[in-house]
Order: sequence, then C-alpha cells, then structure tokens
Amino acid sequence: MGAKLIIAATTNADMRYASGFAVPDPFILVETAKRYLLLSSLEYGRARKFYKGKRGYEVVLLDPYYEAVKKQMKGKVRKGSVLALIAAKFLKDKKIRKVTMPAQSWAIHVEQLRKAGIKVEIAKKPLYPQRAVKTQQELKEIKNVRNATVKAMNHCISILSKSKGKTLKYKGKTVTSEFLRKEARKILLEYDCEAAEMIISHGKQTAFPHDMGSGTIKRGEPVVMDFFPRSTKTGYWFDMTRTVCKGTPSKELVKLYNTVKKSQDAALKKVKAGVSTGAIHKAAADVFEQAGYTTDDGQGFIHGTGHGLGLEIHEAPSLHAKGTEKLRKGMIITIEPGLYYKKLGGVRLENTVRVTTTGYEDLTRMGRVLRL
Amino acid sequence: MGAKLIIAATTNADMRYASGFAVPDPFILVETAKRYLLLSSLEYGRARKFYKGKRGYEVVLLDPYYEAVKKQMKGKVRKGSVLALIAAKFLKDKKIRKVTMPAQSWAIHVEQLRKAGIKVEIAKKPLYPQRAVKTQQELKEIKNVRNATVKAMNHCISILSKSKGKTLKYKGKTVTSEFLRKEARKILLEYDCEAAEMIISHGKQTAFPHDMGSGTIKRGEPVVMDFFPRSTKTGYWFDMTRTVCKGTPSKELVKLYNTVKKSQDAALKKVKAGVSTGAIHKAAADVFEQAGYTTDDGQGFIHGTGHGLGLEIHEAPSLHAKGTEKLRKGMIITIEPGLYYKKLGGVRLENTVRVTTTGYEDLTRMGRVLRL
Repeated sequence: MGAKLIIAATTNADMRYASGFAVPDPFILVETAKRYLLLSSLEYGRARKFYKGKRGYEVVLLDPYYEAVKKQMKGKVRKGSVLALIAAKFLKDKKIRKVTMPAQSWAIHVEQLRKAGIKVEIAKKPLYPQRAVKTQQELKEIKNVRNATVKAMNHCISILSKSKGKTLKYKGKTVTSEFLRKEARKILLEYDCEAAEMIISHGKQTAFPHDMGSGTIKRGEPVVMDFFPRSTKTGYWFDMTRTVCKGTPSKELVKLYNTVKKSQDAALKKVKAGVSTGAIHKAAADVFEQAGYTTDDGQGFIHGTGHGLGLEIHEAPSLHAKGTEKLRKGMIITIEPGLYYKKLGGVRLENTVRVTTTGYEDLTRMGRVLRL
Repeated sequence: MGAKLIIAATTNADMRYASGFAVPDPFILVETAKRYLLLSSLEYGRARKFYKGKRGYEVVLLDPYYEAVKKQMKGKVRKGSVLALIAAKFLKDKKIRKVTMPAQSWAIHVEQLRKAGIKVEIAKKPLYPQRAVKTQQELKEIKNVRNATVKAMNHCISILSKSKGKTLKYKGKTVTSEFLRKEARKILLEYDCEAAEMIISHGKQTAFPHDMGSGTIKRGEPVVMDFFPRSTKTGYWFDMTRTVCKGTPSKELVKLYNTVKKSQDAALKKVKAGVSTGAIHKAAADVFEQAGYTTDDGQGFIHGTGHGLGLEIHEAPSLHAKGTEKLRKGMIITIEPGLYYKKLGGVRLENTVRVTTTGYEDLTRMGRVLRL
C-alpha cells in the first residue's frame, strides 16, 4: 500500500487507532516504516511527552511548515485546506510522492494534495483492517463500557418494574423516556461513559427502530431500550438492546417477542470463526419467515443482523443478507434481530459477542425477559 | 451554485442545519429549489411525520434506489460507496448533472460520483454561509446551553472555594480533575447537555492548553476550566473558560492573570459589526506584547483569540492574526486570549458573546476572579 496519510482529529477512529492519542483538532499522520505525527505547538509538548520512548513514532512540530505554506501562499491560507498543504510539503521533504488515504478523508484535502502534485489513492478497504479483530487490551476496554451499559440498563429496568399505575409512576414521578434516559446517563457518567444518543422508545414509537423515544410510558406497551455508550477515556463503544413491558403484554406482543428471541438464538448459534456474515443474517431471517412475519413497506425485519464495534459504533464486519465476509476469532459483533409493525410496535434484542473458534463469548451479561 | 449535495449523518453540522432533523446514520440531501431527503426505510416513516406540512422538503424512500444499484452492480455493493451510487442515480433521474458538495465530504463519495458521470465541485466556502449569523431561535438554543455551562462551572468553583488543605479536600474527598469533571457532568446532564471533552487542568498541566487535566489539585496553583458542552437535544454548543486558584497565587500568576484579563477586555472592546477578526486578535496580542510577554517555542499566546460557535464548536468566523473577515451582527463568537509558560503554567479567560451593531452582548453570565 506504500505510505499512508491521515488528516483528522482522533474522533476519527483510524486516527485514534494509529496514533493511540486523543486530540480534539485535526492533525496529520504519515505512515511509512515509521509513524510521523505533525502537531501544532498547541499539542506538541503534550505529544512529545506521550510518545517518549515509543519506538516507531516521531512527533514533528507543524508550525514551521505552516509558516512556509503561508509564505508560499502569500498569506492567503484557507483554514480548511491548510493541513493538506502542510502535508504536501512534508511529504515532498520526505520524497514521498504517493499516498493512500482513508475513504472518509475530506474531499477538499484530497483536491489540495493532488493540486500540489501528490498522487492520492482513496482506500477502497479499511486502512487498518486489523481493527476488526480486537486485541486483549481492546477487549478489556470494551468490557469496561459493557459494565457501565449493563448497570445503566438494569437501573432503568428496575425503575420500570417498580413503577405503578396505568401511566407509569415511580416514587411520585411520571416515568417518561426522558426521565429514564437521564437516570441511565447518571450511571454511565460514574463509569466515564457518555451516550449522545440513546433509544428509550415505547408504544407505537417502537415501530421506528431509530425513534429515540419521548413522553410517558404506559402499562402493557413495549419499551425498546437500545443503549450504545462510548467511553470518554478510551473511545471504545458497547451496544445492547432489550425490549420490556411493565404489566401484561398483549398476546401479539408476546408472540413477536418470542419470535425475535428465537431469531436471535438462531443467529447466535451460527456465530463461529469461518462462518460468513450472510449466513448469520440468513439464520435470523429464516426464523421470521418460518413464523410468517413478512418484511415490506418499511415494516418487518428492516435492518441487518449486526455489526462490528470498537472505536466506532458501526465498523467491520457488517452482518447483512449479501454479506460474504468470514467471521474471524477476536471480532466483536452485535447480534440484533428485530421486528417492526406500525400497528403493533417493535421488538429488538441485541447482544454483543466475541467470536471464537468454537462459537462465541457473550459479552452481554443480562438475560432476556419481556414482562416486568 | 446550482444543486447542492450532502451525504452525511446529522452529526455533520451542514446536514443538521439543512435538514433540521437528527439521524445517526449517513443519508442523502439534494438541494435545488427544493430539499430532497433520501432516507432508508429505517428512518422513512419518522421523517415523513417530521416533515409533514413543511413546504420545500420532500422525503424520498431510498430503498428502491438501493435495489436498483445492487442489481446494476450485480450484488457487489461496497458499504462505504453505496450512498454515492444511490445519489448518482437519483441525480440522473432528476436530470441534475452537476453538484456542489461540502469540503468535508468523504473522498470516496466524490470519487464514486465522478465515476458515475456526475460533475462534482468541492465547495471552497461554507455551503451555508448564513450559519455564521445566528437566528433568534439559534440564540435561544445557545443560551440554554449557556445556562447549563455556567451552572456546572459555578458548582466546580464552589467546591474549590470550600475545599481545605494543601492538597485540596472537599467533604472528606480528594479534589481531583476527574472528580470535578464528574461533578460538572452531573449538572450538565440535568440540562440535557454533554461534554465528551472538558478541560480541568492544574499546575504545570495548564501550560498545555489542550491538556484535559488529571490528578489532585493543590492550594496555590492555577486551575484552568474550559467547558464546551453540547445539547444532546438541539446539537448547539457553548464555550467558556475560567482560571482560578484556591489559596494564595504567586505574584507571577497574579500578573499573568491580570494581563490576560486586560487582553480579553481589549479584545472585547473592539468587538462590533464591521470590525475585522484580525483587528480583534491584534488588540488581544498587543496587550501581551506591551506587558513584555513573548510568544516563542510553544509558549506565550500560542492560539487565536476566538471562533464562532453554533452547531459546531469551532465554526466561522475564526479570529486570528491574519483574519480579514468582518464581524456581522448576530454572529456568536468566543473571545479567549491566554498565556502559557512551562515553568509558570497557563491562564485563559473565555467569554462567548453575540456581535451587535454597537458592540456585543456578553452571553457568559459569570465574573472573572482568580483567587478563591
């Protein structure tokens, strides 16, 4: 692949992975045999300390390059493209004429680099395909987020199960999606995790898998809780979903729930190193088909069965109908079949598991119970 | 400019601005006289409800386009580029041959669109330059985040001022950066705000403006608190910084603080519609120069004076030495000079203000006091 070039903040997962560092503003990483990090004086001192003794990393002060580019451009430096011009200058100094950049690179950067005479190839595949298979350290970080997520969800389930009334009340307070979300976030906070988005939908809202949910929760209706927090310390994610019902669910809802549970079990049973992602999706979808649940017009099983997670909430592999990728030992993936109908609502169950050579390790330490 | 094309999730500020909607996954927006939103069945129903009665918006189900692209590609659809292929198909159906895309568009999308015969221009300027000037509604949203931010910072200042001992203790607990950060986040949470990053640095850490801070805070040392939370509901940000010291600060620190305060006042005095961003930076920098504080080797006044904020924490305008842009009424900007020296530490003071025709409205409802 030759030299790699990334221009991004460490909110970009490739940059975070390659640098192992956390920087809020975009900077430059050039990878040949060595990784060069070009950082402004704002970050330079901190970075030098961080990389001290780490072989294979060299921290370069960006400011002189910036001054040179400014001079060259006669002061007319546009903020969005200046990093690309600086990167071009650095690459030329190092006699690098060709780079591969991540697919998500800014179009303006690519345009500027090409104008400056650098040959840029846009990566068709992940820049670090090894990210899909997690190291022991990464597994540990993901388990830490798991602990927070399970605790937060248990807390919400406990509130729901102790609630009273037709429109649920807990210790005198009306139980709403918003109230539960705050309660969950309080727990996540204790573990240095945050969840910018967090689904706690109920009733008819559950028919739309991405409806975040709002308003008062009622007895007997489905409640879909899909929590996907991220550690503010390490950048790793976790993902899990439970569907519950305080009070007596309708017969239709019980049937829907049991079918999703069966579908999840069928998919989980298939998980093993060497199996294709498409085969896992098929196992989940077959259960729905056999039970007579159809998918049409935005209703039914309207999404894939799962996805990898790590430094991104959605990363490789993707488990969908046409998936041909083979699972590998150490991949961490979600298994999350669901059914959605406008009249009845939706049910989704999601576990995050680690692929092994014989099957999987379930990282989601929580049972599945509909009725509270 | 002709037709605009955005392919992004609403974490992208342009997409959020143009769509007014919140979607966690990337989707497609095409803007001609009308705004077309191409959404998958996962979002379609929710979006139809949301845009009902909103003229100028048309929600299009993406799934048939996806199926057509799959057929055309004989099943070999790469996840990263499929949205670009779908966009190309939609554009051709609408007889649109040329589009302008934001500078931050994914390079892979641009490449795929061009391959598909669409002429793509990368915007050199913001796609929605009107974003820099805030509407009354936007001002209101930003003030809501302000309320949370001021409350959180007051809470931390109150803890620091009530702390005892040489290494600070509060109600028997050791006062660390981490402890204060959690306390601040608890308050932010109550207002539906979150802060993935939040600087509470102390002592020598303060010499590095982007050091997030860690460990036990000691009497007599500078504490830099830079809070920049975002509303999880509306997507808007606020930004403010205070530097404080529990106990008796050194003479050098007091001098540093007073100089930064004087610099901030000088910059604020300059703020008014029609004034250039460079002139404001100069006013701040001149105070430092006159007081004999030099900038060199990653020390001194090593950053710009401020930036616009809104749906992004850093957006136009940028207030730096070479800035030629003129402030306009309704812009919301930070004024945040600072001085940083490795031996002494750093001081930064940051207010967020709204530009008016006669000066500015200070949105930061908090005084500036070093000694607690």
